[in-house]
Amino acid sequence: MIENGELVQLMSKRGDSYIFRLTPGETLNTHRGVIRHDDLLTQSFGTYVESHLGNEFLLVKPSLHDILLNTRRNTTIMYPKDIGFLLLNMNIGYGQHVVEAGTGSGALTTALAWAVGPHGHVTTYEVRQSMQDLARKNLAHLGLETRVTFKLGDIGEGIEERDVDAFFLDVRTPEAYIPIVRQALKPGGFFGSLVPTTNQVSDLLYALNEHNFAFATVCEVLLRYYKPAPGRLRPHDRMVAHTGFLIFARPILAPVNPSPNDDMEKS
Amino acid sequence: MIENGELVQLMSKRGDSYIFRLTPGETLNTHRGVIRHDDLLTQSFGTYVESHLGNEFLLVKPSLHDILLNTRRNTTIMYPKDIGFLLLNMNIGYGQHVVEAGTGSGALTTALAWAVGPHGHVTTYEVRQSMQDLARKNLAHLGLETRVTFKLGDIGEGIEERDVDAFFLDVRTPEAYIPIVRQALKPGGFFGSLVPTTNQVSDLLYALNEHNFAFATVCEVLLRYYKPAPGRLRPHDRMVAHTGFLIFARPILAPVNPSPNDDMEKS
Amino acid sequence: MIENGELVQLMSKRGDSYIFRLTPGETLNTHRGVIRHDDLLTQSFGTYVESHLGNEFLLVKPSLHDILLNTRRNTTIMYPKDIGFLLLNMNIGYGQHVVEAGTGSGALTTALAWAVGPHGHVTTYEVRQSMQDLARKNLAHLGLETRVTFKLGDIGEGIEERDVDAFFLDVRTPEAYIPIVRQALKPGGFFGSLVPTTNQVSDLLYALNEHNFAFATVCEVLLRYYKPAPGRLRPHDRMVAHTGFLIFARPILAPVNPSPNDDMEKS
Amino acid sequence: MIENGELVQLMSKRGDSYIFRLTPGETLNTHRGVIRHDDLLTQSFGTYVESHLGNEFLLVKPSLHDILLNTRRNTTIMYPKDIGFLLLNMNIGYGQHVVEAGTGSGALTTALAWAVGPHGHVTTYEVRQSMQDLARKNLAHLGLETRVTFKLGDIGEGIEERDVDAFFLDVRTPEAYIPIVRQALKPGGFFGSLVPTTNQVSDLLYALNEHNFAFATVCEVLLRYYKPAPGRLRPHDRMVAHTGFLIFARPILAPVNPSPNDDMEKS
Repeated sequence: MIENGELVQLMSKRGDSYIFRLTPGETLNTHRGVIRHDDLLTQSFGTYVESHLGNEFLLVKPSLHDILLNTRRNTTIMYPKDIGFLLLNMNIGYGQHVVEAGTGSGALTTALAWAVGPHGHVTTYEVRQSMQDLARKNLAHLGLETRVTFKLGDIGEGIEERDVDAFFLDVRTPEAYIPIVRQALKPGGFFGSLVPTTNQVSDLLYALNEHNFAFATVCEVLLRYYKPAPGRLRPHDRMVAHTGFLIFARPILAPVNPSPNDDMEKS
Repeated sequence: MIENGELVQLMSKRGDSYIFRLTPGETLNTHRGVIRHDDLLTQSFGTYVESHLGNEFLLVKPSLHDILLNTRRNTTIMYPKDIGFLLLNMNIGYGQHVVEAGTGSGALTTALAWAVGPHGHVTTYEVRQSMQDLARKNLAHLGLETRVTFKLGDIGEGIEERDVDAFFLDVRTPEAYIPIVRQALKPGGFFGSLVPTTNQVSDLLYALNEHNFAFATVCEVLLRYYKPAPGRLRPHDRMVAHTGFLIFARPILAPVNPSPNDDMEKS
Repeated sequence: MIENGELVQLMSKRGDSYIFRLTPGETLNTHRGVIRHDDLLTQSFGTYVESHLGNEFLLVKPSLHDILLNTRRNTTIMYPKDIGFLLLNMNIGYGQHVVEAGTGSGALTTALAWAVGPHGHVTTYEVRQSMQDLARKNLAHLGLETRVTFKLGDIGEGIEERDVDAFFLDVRTPEAYIPIVRQALKPGGFFGSLVPTTNQVSDLLYALNEHNFAFATVCEVLLRYYKPAPGRLRPHDRMVAHTGFLIFARPILAPVNPSPNDDMEKS
Repeated sequence: MIENGELVQLMSKRGDSYIFRLTPGETLNTHRGVIRHDDLLTQSFGTYVESHLGNEFLLVKPSLHDILLNTRRNTTIMYPKDIGFLLLNMNIGYGQHVVEAGTGSGALTTALAWAVGPHGHVTTYEVRQSMQDLARKNLAHLGLETRVTFKLGDIGEGIEERDVDAFFLDVRTPEAYIPIVRQALKPGGFFGSLVPTTNQVSDLLYALNEHNFAFATVCEVLLRYYKPAPGRLRPHDRMVAHTGFLIFARPILAPVNPSPNDDMEKS
């Protein structure tokens, strides 16, 4: 049985998706009809429920993947394909302290808060009050706001955080903030960023080399979906071809050749 | 300062990587010289250390990504690019119970144990004693063995686990075990699998349709690395072009059209 | 100076494209205004011309690439990315005789007629009269109809052509026609096909093995466009992710292991 | 029956490939044994022949694709996947005059000579005598040397050719030669280039904008091979991930906004 306060997802047969927290007395309004939260309390996950117009919705538990794709936004969000890979690369897990700039609508913030668990913490910076408000609302909606400190301001003016496990820059000119990142990261910490253009990748690599980051890695994650028809299996006709380039690097102490693996193949 | 018992990584300038747990009195033997664990205890992460032959190694904290790629194995391992995406899709996180078959050398087991944290649990099945031994050794090496129950045997003969949050099949004929998965998964649970051939994808999709799984999703994650040279930025000449097809699906209660989003574009 | 009867292309600043043959007295009607063919005769390629509404169009000579993408059609056409690669793989060039089934709207027919030159020939089969009419009109529009013999009918009932240099199947069940292809191809000839699903690829490979074709090759050509902004260079957000799988094979005389290069990497 | 002077290909079961012209009295020496040309004259294409060591080779007619991959070289060659697409984009066909710089080992020269047919012509520039000698030898080997004029020198010092149909730059700094290309191209002509790095793409786009080229297009052609096993169909494990970026553009007369389709999706 589903409990009050639990996060649930309703999916129509057309693929429309609604993610919300069960609240006594509330209703969900869709263009395929109204559903009362109270009616869902007696149901089990995996059941089809009907709106007052008789349209069916499948009641499921949302995955982090679905939550991220449903994040209310005014900006481009980071995609699950990129987030899944960066969590592993930056070793973001249970109990860690991660700093992010900028917050945006909070999609990556959500994933970071989810990954560090109840004993970790995320500090996230944003310069636009309206974006911070939206992100705060999105995180509260998911019950993850207690794991996050929202700060308003430009990290270029300096930040207090020190000894953080990982630092992610989702800003237009990440190369400008590398000294700030260096100060905040603990020895052995992890740096990551995502930028859309090749020019930005070059600018960031120059800055990382200059400020003693090593093992710079640049990659793209591409996701190709197939039509799940077993007798006519084929890729979808179109795909998302580009979200951004992921860049990872590690701060080091001594000056060294910053690209020892420049010409290596990786996998 | 680095502590005894901590997991560390040494990387040569050529990109050779050694991941191990610091143990008083032990030594690391590489073909570029010997390094004593005790000498690392006085160091900080991000420092270069020398072997007795004078070769330099960068001392860093390993990421889950690096740990996975370094897993000792006798079989094909699952790649970080696939694991990162499946963790988000199958909502695998803090405090959950996940079942996996088969264990293999334990690369995915490692990631699952890492993702569920100290209050979650992983049960993993394997039919080959030798593989289980290897996986157990790999997990112990990483200090994650307390989060994992290793079981020897074929899940086709039935399993005891019930009400599990997520179930991953990494076996040759996943279509044969779908009824077992169904019994073990809680309502709202998550199913996932990875298979290398298109024929296997079709076989699995037929089985999922037959056993009331909905929202079947088939995809590939492709990872493209770039040479991190800011003035000569370009993709690597060669890449890993295929590891496997990821298939996800959700168990549902009522019989419905199993592919409501058959022709939808996804991202 | 441009001559009467020449094939020209007008491109609007929005990228709309019109390909037509210059004919005295005729007019081109676009939703951005009318342009008289006679007014173009005094122009040079590379010039901007104006419609009667004052909208500018660039006057250029169309490439085969542009011609193919502009082919009037009622069906999926083959894409230039696939056609360019198959011409090289099937060695289709000056003076050859190529057979194609089915004609469709004539996009591939156009490319084949272009590639074999004035001394080669293309024979193309189609079962639908309406499609043949459309293709004939498209080829005539381009002045290539003299290089093509259009035949109405199902090649499954047998064809007269023998000793042809290359044979391309663009039909739903190419596996059904492999014996026909074998009879028509000269020793040393080239076979090719394009199918959208993996199931069709498997079916075709079985048929090729059975009928003594060797060096079966299966591949996909993917085309990724970039926004041509030098200071903000990045791939387009979305791309055509799938048109079809290309299959090539060569008829051989003696029975042999049909897949000698089964596990080889190719480039 | 195969004739003297004909171009033939022998392929071993392992995929080794030998392309040569049949010459009375000559022998082919492979590490799997010797084969006399005279013995092939009595054979038919599609037959298996044996070396003096008893190893079998399939006797076939080589495709342009195979010829290009077999080109003797001291440099990176252009790949068939790129060449097939550029021939269509640059409209290179029967009877045209095409200029290329630099010649390199002559792979693209070969394809151009093949595409323009016996009534077209290719002029190709190279600064290194040794490369020109190699290319000349490669073209003569294929019987295509009469369609090509080899010129030694740097096109930066000016060239005589005018009114050419298409101009391809395969040099390190194509941006330096755009004015030269402009002078040589006829109105309505086609420009193309291939460069490996994103920095070079940006530099070339700036130069094209400056010198009144329009419809600049940047793309990559990716080729993904599958193992041709019908019951275990899957992509190859590894692939060529990058050869270069293709850039196309058209010279225009009037100064205009050079990138009218800057933000358009293309296919």
